[in-house]
Order: sequence, then C-alpha cells, then structure tokens
Amino acid sequence: MTRDAAAPETFSPIRWEEGSLRLLDQTRLPREEVWLDCRQPEQVAEAIRRLAVRGAPAIGVAAAYGLVVGLQSGDPRGDPAERFDQVAELLGATRPTAVNLRWALERGRRVFEEGVERGREAAIAALLEWAHALHAADVEANRRIGSFGAELFAAGDRVLTHCNTGALATAGYGTALGVIHSSFEAGRLQQVWVDETRPLLQGSRLTAWELGRLGIPFKLVTDSSVGSLMARNLVDRVVLGADRIAANGDTANKIGTYTVAVLANRHNVPFYVAAPLSTIDPRTPGGSEIPIEERDEAEVTDVFGTRIAPEEAPAANFAFDVTPHELITAIITDAGVLEPPYTESIARALAGQSEAG
Amino acid sequence: MTRDAAAPETFSPIRWEEGSLRLLDQTRLPREEVWLDCRQPEQVAEAIRRLAVRGAPAIGVAAAYGLVVGLQSGDPRGDPAERFDQVAELLGATRPTAVNLRWALERGRRVFEEGVERGREAAIAALLEWAHALHAADVEANRRIGSFGAELFAAGDRVLTHCNTGALATAGYGTALGVIHSSFEAGRLQQVWVDETRPLLQGSRLTAWELGRLGIPFKLVTDSSVGSLMARNLVDRVVLGADRIAANGDTANKIGTYTVAVLANRHNVPFYVAAPLSTIDPRTPGGSEIPIEERDEAEVTDVFGTRIAPEEAPAANFAFDVTPHELITAIITDAGVLEPPYTESIARALAGQSEAG
Repeated sequence: MTRDAAAPETFSPIRWEEGSLRLLDQTRLPREEVWLDCRQPEQVAEAIRRLAVRGAPAIGVAAAYGLVVGLQSGDPRGDPAERFDQVAELLGATRPTAVNLRWALERGRRVFEEGVERGREAAIAALLEWAHALHAADVEANRRIGSFGAELFAAGDRVLTHCNTGALATAGYGTALGVIHSSFEAGRLQQVWVDETRPLLQGSRLTAWELGRLGIPFKLVTDSSVGSLMARNLVDRVVLGADRIAANGDTANKIGTYTVAVLANRHNVPFYVAAPLSTIDPRTPGGSEIPIEERDEAEVTDVFGTRIAPEEAPAANFAFDVTPHELITAIITDAGVLEPPYTESIARALAGQSEAG
Repeated sequence: MTRDAAAPETFSPIRWEEGSLRLLDQTRLPREEVWLDCRQPEQVAEAIRRLAVRGAPAIGVAAAYGLVVGLQSGDPRGDPAERFDQVAELLGATRPTAVNLRWALERGRRVFEEGVERGREAAIAALLEWAHALHAADVEANRRIGSFGAELFAAGDRVLTHCNTGALATAGYGTALGVIHSSFEAGRLQQVWVDETRPLLQGSRLTAWELGRLGIPFKLVTDSSVGSLMARNLVDRVVLGADRIAANGDTANKIGTYTVAVLANRHNVPFYVAAPLSTIDPRTPGGSEIPIEERDEAEVTDVFGTRIAPEEAPAANFAFDVTPHELITAIITDAGVLEPPYTESIARALAGQSEAG
C-alpha cells in the first residue's frame, strides 16, 4: 500500500511518508512550518501531549498511525500483543478529554487482533491500511459536515468561531472551519470573527493562518470581546467544534466555549457544534461525566516563553469546559444536522451509523 | 507647599516630587519598576495615551498634575490662559471613554480661572494645591468605597475581578481592589480569581502584582475561563471598576466586563461595580451614548513585542464595553452603596454630593 492511494485531497497536518509518521508541529505555527518525524511511539505520545498535533479528530488519526509506529519499532522477536498493549496504553494516557483518542485505540485493537492471527507483519499491514482508511474517512466526514453546515448559513453571515477546528485540527478540511469553508464557497459568508483562544492562541495562531491561506475574510479579537461583538449585533452565527459530546448533547470543548454559548443564548445568536459522529460518546450520559484536563500553569503565565505575570503567581488552567445541551442550537455531523431533543436525535444517528457500517 | 503635606498613606503610582510629576510606567510591570519624570505636558499626554498611567481615577489625577506641569513649562511671558487651553486640549484628547479625565480638566479650569486673577504664579500654586487635594481625596474616596463594599462580603467569599482597579489604577488604595483589600482585612475573603484581561494583561501583570504585595491569596485564569469557574460554583461575587457610569447606571469598563456580567447574571452571582462618584456622568443618559475607544490592532496581534498571529492578520481592538444597568447588582461608591433603580439612586447620591461640597 502506498500513501498516495489513501491521500486525501486537502491539506493535512498528518502524513505517512516512507514508512514513517510525519506530524506538523503546530506549536511552531504561524512562525515556522516544522514537521516531526515520528519513528517511536513515545514521539507520537509526546507530540499529542504537548499539542504539536491537536484537535480531537486529528488526535484520533495520529493515534491510529501511532499504533503502526509502535508495532513497527517493537522487537520483531517479541510478543506483538504485548507490544500493542504497551503502545495503546502509552498513547491512551496522553489526553483525557477527547473521546476520538479512545475510540481510535479501541477500533485499532480490533483491527490488530484480526490481523495478528496471520502474524506480526500482517497485523502491521492491516493497521496501516485501517489508519489510511480512517484518515481518508475523517476528511470525507468533514466534507459532509461542511456541506450540511453550509445549508444553515445565509448570505452575508458574520460568523464567530473559537479555537481551531480546521484542517490542522483534523485529518484534513476541518469540522467547524470546514463548515465556514463550505459556506464561503457557497457565497454565504461575509466575515469570520476569530477569537484568539487563550492560553495557547489556537485562534490567532492557527485559525488565522488557515483562513489566510484559504482567502476567507476574518478579524481577530480577544476572547473577552465576544460579548461586546454580540451586543453590537455584529455576530450572526457561532460555529465551533467538540472534544466530546455526551449522549444528551452536552459538549466538552476548548475552554471558553461555554462562555460563548451563554452569550449567544442571551443574544439569540444560533450556536452550532460541528463534529463527526466519532466525537459522540454514547457511554457518557451527560457533561458532568466528562473528565476535564488541567494543564500546566505556565501556559497561562507565559506567552511564547515570555513571562506575563509576576514570578510565583499561581494560576488555574482548565483546558476544556462543558456546554449544556440546552445552549446548543444544532449539532452538525457527518450524518446530518442533529436537533434537540438530542438524546433522541443522537441515538437515532448512532443507530443509523451502525446499520450502515 | 511640600509634597508630604498631601501625601496619602498608601502606595500611589503618581508622585509630585521636587517640582515635577513622576508616574510609574505600568507598561513595564511586573518586570521593572520604572518611574517617568514628566516635565512637559506632552510627556503626561503620552503616558496617558500609551497606558503608562491608566485606570479612570488615576488618569484624572495625572491630568490634574499635568495641568500644573503644562503651566510651569510654558513661556513665562506668554498668555497663561492660552497655555491652559492648549494643555487642557492636549490632555483631553488622549482617551475618550474615562469620564474622570474630562471631569478633572473641567474642575481644573475653574481653579485656574480663579487663581490667574492673581497672576500666573498664583494660578500654578492654586492648581498644584488642588491637584494634591484631588489626589488625597481620591485615596480617601477609595477607602470609603472599600469599607462600604466590605459590608457586602461574607466570610469565605471567592471573588472574581477583571482588569486592574487597585492602587495602580487610582491615586492610591484602589476601587474594586480596595473593596477586596478591605474585605480581606475584615476576614471575609478566601481567594481572588484574577482574569488576565487581554489584550494588555492588566490582570496578570498588575492585579497579580498588587495582590502579591498585599499578601491576598489569588489565582490567575484566562478571560475565557470565567464561565467555567461560575458553572463549577467557584465564584461567590464579582467586583470590578468603571471608566464611566451613565445616569441610568449603564457602565463602560474594560472590554470583557459585559461578558463577565452576563455570566454572573446566569449563575446568580452578585455583580458589583466599584467607583467614586466622579466616575458617574449625569450628562450621559445611557450606555449607548458612551464613546468607546478603539486601540491599535498590534495590542491583539503582539504580546510584549512577540507576534502571536500571522503577519497581516487583521484585528479589532475595542478597549471597553458597556454593561447595561440591569446586570449590575449594586454600585459601590464613596457615598455608599447604590442599588436599582439607578436613575433614582444615582441622582440622589449626586445631589447629596453637591449639597455636601
């Protein structure tokens, strides 16, 4: 199998080249485009942990390739099942909130178990084929999300998004940014408001970089400007992504999402979550069951290595928050637009998927 | 007159020493304590414009001393009234939102006009005496705000504040941070949540610096964490400052204030504005009449000289927003705590002041 066979026709931050995994180091953007060559699973785990690769769908695909890297780099005389367990545990421990990571590792285990009956090499080949398929399927899912989402937009819309949900956050094309991309191509978008998304500035560093490349008009604002923009009637719609959607529609996403949702609710601005069905976790009944990652205080007290607070100043750094389903106008998925009541629409969509799949 | 006679017993970012005005350059905090020696009114205007001195009350007091600096540095053979007009116009054009600036310049004009009847030197002496009195009165007003505000707090309170309203933002002691200070001394405060206040980081740079010096426990968070903190029941009260309060209670304050107010409203968290009566502008009927300063895009796209967005990425940078009066639980002033309906309570407080003064 060559990479070209499965290569999606969009920019992707994840590449399989010459038998190894290459990841675009997003912590260096927009200043530099540096690709990490990952030949050991520890390198993949580290890239996920320090957000060199980030965004729930991209983490899932990177972890799938990470399983291949892990088996390839293991002792050829060792027990492949033992190696698989070790690598899956390593990758699974990187980030707790995005469900796509767990989802990919569970699917990967099934592929491995089938393949390994025919030996170690067969298991590696099966995993690689599956990872390529997952990669291509994610791009395809995003294109479907984009076209379902564009139907919700109207000419002249000024849309606000939070964090980065573009090609960089996925295997390619993007979820919420894919919706923005499709709406722009359909002539329905006037301008994107990009909030900077502190602490790691995925809005100003990554979303601005992607929109600039796509030629879509945008303006950056600080996160705390969103209320004022809505009060001045400058925002027609909000669309953003998800790291995990519970069975009732409650959505964990980048810190600040809940604040945007409360503001949108007050100003009657439609608030859309865009995500593939793989981001929905039917085993999580509601938002209070979603574990929220707490990250290093230095992400708050330092910007690009410059200290912005007094030495010793303590900080709290929750990476995600939970938006309750009642604040979400619709969830745009690759299986269509889900509307409240979400417990029912989500169950239907997931049932349809398992019938289809 | 010596400086000591009027010296307030608190840290002040504004000093009159050896016949000239010295301002703490707050853009260099927390890394360096640099004092600017202002011998020309252009230096005072520049310090106000680039936020070396900032905070509505501090701007008022700095402008008062700026009038003295302006007259002192003028041609002794020139027309002092002409010089006064020129300096007042220069200072008045620096920042449009804070009403204390205009208030101080108008009061200063009256002092000048009375003094100048006795000649240029008498006018300078009168203005200096008045500026010292204004300085001391602001500190005194803040202490009253602090003790009125502390009455509203309960033991164990976890209080959130936005931007910087401490000694640095005033002539000394602080408004909302004065309330926090007084509550802490009264044993009613468990912890302060300090949001960083992008773009210029007055929370992480200045409020954290002041709270550290005062020994008051605090934690820094990004601005977009506020919703999540409230959803987790970690915030008991909000107290913050004002740049201008309209006759109906609508309040212009640092960008992001409105967002915090909407969140507090949703979570039934009391939301207090703390400001001296001089921040209330009875000539502004409501918030929509308050001019909102738009500042340089580079404040959003750069942090301490490091570019955080792609080159050429456009940004919008509104410095303030307006919180409608219905989201404000109470306004804590030097004349007591004002409650809704504000049109009445504000009118009463201002009438009481002119009777007293």
